[in-house]
Amino acid sequence: MPKSINVHFLPELIPEQLLAKKTFVVIDVLRATTTIAHALAAGAKSVVPCLEVADVRQRKGELAGEVVLGGERDGVKIEGFDFGNSPAEYTAESVGGKTLLFTTTNGTRAMKRASGAAQVLLAAFANFSAVCDRLSREQHIEVLCAGTNQEVAREDVLLAGAIVDDQHNSDSRISMNDQALLAADSWSRFRQDLADHETPLHETLRSSRGGRNLIEIGLERDIEIAAQIDTLYVVPKLDLGAWRITSA
Amino acid sequence: MPKSINVHFLPELIPEQLLAKKTFVVIDVLRATTTIAHALAAGAKSVVPCLEVADVRQRKGELAGEVVLGGERDGVKIEGFDFGNSPAEYTAESVGGKTLLFTTTNGTRAMKRASGAAQVLLAAFANFSAVCDRLSREQHIEVLCAGTNQEVAREDVLLAGAIVDDQHNSDSRISMNDQALLAADSWSRFRQDLADHETPLHETLRSSRGGRNLIEIGLERDIEIAAQIDTLYVVPKLDLGAWRITSA
Repeated sequence: MPKSINVHFLPELIPEQLLAKKTFVVIDVLRATTTIAHALAAGAKSVVPCLEVADVRQRKGELAGEVVLGGERDGVKIEGFDFGNSPAEYTAESVGGKTLLFTTTNGTRAMKRASGAAQVLLAAFANFSAVCDRLSREQHIEVLCAGTNQEVAREDVLLAGAIVDDQHNSDSRISMNDQALLAADSWSRFRQDLADHETPLHETLRSSRGGRNLIEIGLERDIEIAAQIDTLYVVPKLDLGAWRITSA
Repeated sequence: MPKSINVHFLPELIPEQLLAKKTFVVIDVLRATTTIAHALAAGAKSVVPCLEVADVRQRKGELAGEVVLGGERDGVKIEGFDFGNSPAEYTAESVGGKTLLFTTTNGTRAMKRASGAAQVLLAAFANFSAVCDRLSREQHIEVLCAGTNQEVAREDVLLAGAIVDDQHNSDSRISMNDQALLAADSWSRFRQDLADHETPLHETLRSSRGGRNLIEIGLERDIEIAAQIDTLYVVPKLDLGAWRITSA
């Protein structure tokens, strides 16, 4: 059986029977998976993804050790929380050795949708090569784009395409669904624009709906960080039993 | 308010509130919208899209004039029907002046999903320019890809991208959703492949899941026909009240 890689543009598009025995890669470039990769690379002990703000407050009382709260609603920091959803907030000083309780709607929803899988990894442009190296050992890969409020997000599909391209380069017989072909088309177009007009990745991310939203609320700097490729070598992995993310 | 064009990769991805006051363009390249364009260009009086085979048989008894039955299940002609879903079957001789009762799962489902819209047009590569000319007069366009059994179909997204590209060329301020940007990426990649490697459109369509399925059941010729651009100048329009498609 040949190696396979399928892409799903939204959590809602995954057929139920697909989950078992597969390696899932969850992508939420702007910004959950980018920020979680930064937090783990900065030395956070683990990240606990929560769907609701109330879950964060409840889990806080249950956890031992030093705990910090992070996440966003409508893009901005939640009242009473330590941090928002900007990668730059998560440093060795702010989260090193601590447990991060983290809530972000789209990313958490995507992780929950993948929770019947064999394993769930998290990808961002920041840890692109680390994830690809890890995937080279896997036989059946499902790449799940988080999207934004049930709308397809171009930045997530773009990274999915970069991963498809990488896996196809190392095994040209790899089978893929049409969404994987389309994601690869999008990545191919970005590379062409880069070659023809020197359009950097952050320019491309600015034009997506998620990018425009961040610019509107003054968080343009987050787009630049999210667009930096291979700044971290970390593979966030969701422990499905304990429901926490650690560095694999 | 600027002109807008949004793309939806599957009928399931359309938010309910989007339907009113919009012009919908339904795409099912392999093969429903291609075949319907051919049937109307060949002189069929009208095409009545039916979701179920039973609907076709029921409507047959209700209609006056000469009626023929067409459509497919699992790609092949239905028992007792006059024609399958191959564009080449629909000629002046076979359908000229007749009403075509037509059933195809994905295309009909997409048309039903768009039935709350202001108007619904049907697009294929065969009538690309005719549809684009018509759309140049419209202010709010929603392009709806039929997909295949609730899976995104690359050939539909590719044509959606060609339409987005055309509308963007005539009005660079046009607003679009991320799916429209992604569709345009796919079309851009096809054009690049055409320029670099002279890869014709039918080669690209062969590699999609729908293309591979047609090759498997011996209907490769249909892919070649579906990949011919601007062979017909016809704009099929769905009359939402009477529920029939005629040439606009």
